Amino acid sequence: MEPSSRSKLAHRLAEAGQSHLLQFWSELSPEEQEDMAADLEPMNFQEINGFFKSAMEMSSGSKQEKMDSRMEPVPREVLGSVTRDRDCLKQWEAVGLHCIAQNKVAVLLLAGGQGTRLGVSYPKGMYDVGLPSHKTLFQIQAERILKLQRLAEQKHKTKCCIPWYIMTSGRTMESTQDFFSHHNYFGLNKNDIIFFQQGMLPAMDYSGKIILESKGKLAMAPDGNGGLYRSLGNQGIVDDMGRRGIESIHVYCVDNILVKVADPAFVGFCVQKGADCGAKVVEKTNPTEAVGVVCKVDGRYQVVEYSEITLATAEKRSADGRLMFNAGNVANHFFTLSFLKDIVQKHEPELQHHVAQKKIPYVDTQGRLIKPDKPNGIKMEKFVFDIFQFAKTFVVYEVLREDEFSPLKNADSQDGKDTPSTARHALMSLHHRWVLNAGGHFIDENGTHVPAIPRDGAAGHVTEDVNINLKDGTDLPIKCEISPLVSYGGEGLEELVTGREFRATLVIDTTGAHELVKNGL
Amino acid sequence: MEPSSRSKLAHRLAEAGQSHLLQFWSELSPEEQEDMAADLEPMNFQEINGFFKSAMEMSSGSKQEKMDSRMEPVPREVLGSVTRDRDCLKQWEAVGLHCIAQNKVAVLLLAGGQGTRLGVSYPKGMYDVGLPSHKTLFQIQAERILKLQRLAEQKHKTKCCIPWYIMTSGRTMESTQDFFSHHNYFGLNKNDIIFFQQGMLPAMDYSGKIILESKGKLAMAPDGNGGLYRSLGNQGIVDDMGRRGIESIHVYCVDNILVKVADPAFVGFCVQKGADCGAKVVEKTNPTEAVGVVCKVDGRYQVVEYSEITLATAEKRSADGRLMFNAGNVANHFFTLSFLKDIVQKHEPELQHHVAQKKIPYVDTQGRLIKPDKPNGIKMEKFVFDIFQFAKTFVVYEVLREDEFSPLKNADSQDGKDTPSTARHALMSLHHRWVLNAGGHFIDENGTHVPAIPRDGAAGHVTEDVNINLKDGTDLPIKCEISPLVSYGGEGLEELVTGREFRATLVIDTTGAHELVKNGL
Repeated sequence: MEPSSRSKLAHRLAEAGQSHLLQFWSELSPEEQEDMAADLEPMNFQEINGFFKSAMEMSSGSKQEKMDSRMEPVPREVLGSVTRDRDCLKQWEAVGLHCIAQNKVAVLLLAGGQGTRLGVSYPKGMYDVGLPSHKTLFQIQAERILKLQRLAEQKHKTKCCIPWYIMTSGRTMESTQDFFSHHNYFGLNKNDIIFFQQGMLPAMDYSGKIILESKGKLAMAPDGNGGLYRSLGNQGIVDDMGRRGIESIHVYCVDNILVKVADPAFVGFCVQKGADCGAKVVEKTNPTEAVGVVCKVDGRYQVVEYSEITLATAEKRSADGRLMFNAGNVANHFFTLSFLKDIVQKHEPELQHHVAQKKIPYVDTQGRLIKPDKPNGIKMEKFVFDIFQFAKTFVVYEVLREDEFSPLKNADSQDGKDTPSTARHALMSLHHRWVLNAGGHFIDENGTHVPAIPRDGAAGHVTEDVNINLKDGTDLPIKCEISPLVSYGGEGLEELVTGREFRATLVIDTTGAHELVKNGL
Repeated sequence: MEPSSRSKLAHRLAEAGQSHLLQFWSELSPEEQEDMAADLEPMNFQEINGFFKSAMEMSSGSKQEKMDSRMEPVPREVLGSVTRDRDCLKQWEAVGLHCIAQNKVAVLLLAGGQGTRLGVSYPKGMYDVGLPSHKTLFQIQAERILKLQRLAEQKHKTKCCIPWYIMTSGRTMESTQDFFSHHNYFGLNKNDIIFFQQGMLPAMDYSGKIILESKGKLAMAPDGNGGLYRSLGNQGIVDDMGRRGIESIHVYCVDNILVKVADPAFVGFCVQKGADCGAKVVEKTNPTEAVGVVCKVDGRYQVVEYSEITLATAEKRSADGRLMFNAGNVANHFFTLSFLKDIVQKHEPELQHHVAQKKIPYVDTQGRLIKPDKPNGIKMEKFVFDIFQFAKTFVVYEVLREDEFSPLKNADSQDGKDTPSTARHALMSLHHRWVLNAGGHFIDENGTHVPAIPRDGAAGHVTEDVNINLKDGTDLPIKCEISPLVSYGGEGLEELVTGREFRATLVIDTTGAHELVKNGL
């Protein structure tokens, strides 16, 4: 490093009160110095200090008490519900599919996270939850896009393309791109899959000093899934969307195995309502479920996190007995391109970072690596739903959890929630129901019909334990997997299954319906 | 055994087509012969054959298709709901507490099961789920009865007694009685705890032959929790209730750690409605949840098991979006004594046994013990809810699952549902909410307020995994246990907790509120 640029950097750091970052400079090898300088050069420390200041201000104070009195539930007139508006579903779907056929719909995948809690070091989308086909989350989603393109093409006799924008992070970019390339983009057109990267921000201690994770390296973390909006601008994504004639964007998170990518009914509902912004939600039924809820605060829509409200508010109920704040956020959103442009051009800088208190390993002034056992600093994140407040016409679309939401978060060995097993069971249970509703049946090894509802429920069957000798297999979900290339949402299965009897494991793919032999595949 | 009585027995068996039971007689020792004869002597083989015949007839045929078209949901006018009828709750509770104060209310516990699925060989009620206090299910229930007696006494200035009838089985009678005696009846009056025993029936193969589990021993099993009604008569229980002036009986199952024993609101609702029979239910929200539902079939109330209905029926929804058949049975019932007398005297013999197909170990004709790997026979059971059909005025009372229902069924190592951990967490979560609603707060090790909702929800918090370094304790329920002797249903905690800050583990008992030191008791 040139002495002049070194002193310029030192000066910038001093001005920003971050000189400690160079405290071990003289101990670094020339290569380490190069690397560190390369990390530091592009950083805007004054901006970062500003982020820190306003994030800390926002997070302090007794927000909670204030929040409760300001919250209002989502009014019925902005809500579409798959259970309460059944008569409209077909029409919404038709509207959405028409938009898709006109090549006006894109999907945007938030895939910046690594599978840390899952216990793997690669991107979550590459995870195989153990389905009979061993498809990864990326492949399942790719095939849903493919199928939806074909459905739109068949119905509207056009050539259709749903561009897929995939936001990775610095840590997942390369492995994600390699994975797609290695799998030939799962049959999608390479040029219609656009990878881009969310930004990174340094972790800070409570006094606003950037944390060193080693003598020559800053502790960096992605800037939250709301980092999306900055990246949409600075990586030319909104421009690309504009060039392609995109009008509607479906944004979702990689970890939901049931996600209906570019869901035509959701898109159609939002388009028909003239919404610029929409959120897909599932009903929150238990007051202490740890899910953020979509609601109005001071007349504007936002997601209120479960940690922000009092129990009294979480337990409030409407006259119909439902929880008053029951629109559970599942990171599944609709935006118009003009709304996103508006965000990128005008509002992105107004979005405040949220503070996440963390235990961040650091080197102390003696250069020793310390792993703290309580939070010692913060990471700064924006959230994807932070832009709801800017919507002119905001709508909410309520779907069934068992049909559309089963996130993969934890390893199987952990607490049993949101694991590979729960994700796999959720998908197979959905596909089992598709087969039954299309007129197929399952039989067991003795040729007897298997009940539609397996013995696996939360409330269980009240019987005398003493009468249960052994597990008989009815307490596990039927093993059944249907390729997205065959059915996007349960449609088109009649000719394959009606009146037929199947033994698990049943796999339905483009070559037909197959029963896998035990211990096979 | 006298030759004459032996030949009489052989004759009776031959007449009933059960002569094979004596096929190994000559190989038995004199003691084994004595034991077997003692088992066989009191049995009415003609009656057992009759049970078999009608149970098999009832279980055959395509019930499922027929059932769907005959089912009607519970009408709103017979439904009381803690979420939709909030204005009535206080009044119902007052009515119920008045009945209790008049000594007109008894509780009846179904405790015939062993903890087989739990992995223990003793009665489930003796299980300790690992609460800070290490109280067993029996103790928790006993203390709730004690507290309710005191609440009734305080309000009505009378001496109050809630008799507790406990149905055990042949296998659990002695250990249950010993346990209560050893624990001094948990402070209750010994004379107000009445143990009785449900009957046993032999297991049969599909041709109606009684199964031998060894050369000198029949395969026997309890006759289902509906065996209650036969026992109520032949063991003098209804007479005892009559002598005590009982008018209302609350019947429940031992495995529910949250059970509100003799729940005054439920009793009061049923009494005010003039009901002779009532069922407490929780809302079924997922169509494939394995829970029986209370509904009308051919104009009469009954529980339809999850295995009896088609998926299409399970998925049916009302205009309000709720499942049409959503009254989930939790084995928690109200009966008037006059209704029970009517059942015992008139209807008990009309109740058909249900068939449970089982893998039943048996000795074959060569005397070898065989452990079958698929079902080879049946056990015959009646269910406690089989008598709903005879009710003149039937009501349904809907409560919140998270407040009142968390059954203990499986060991922690199994599938994570209905385990000691889920039971313990359900109780501590309820008590945590009681503390918050009474104006107390929890703080963590740094003195910061802990959010009301812990990070433990099914839908999870949508965040980037990469930002989560380590578990920070907020993803576990707050450890908090309140003795039933202090509060039956959350009442009376204000003076102990309002405005106070607590660190977990918090235990509130009759000596006050205590914070337990880590790793200690």
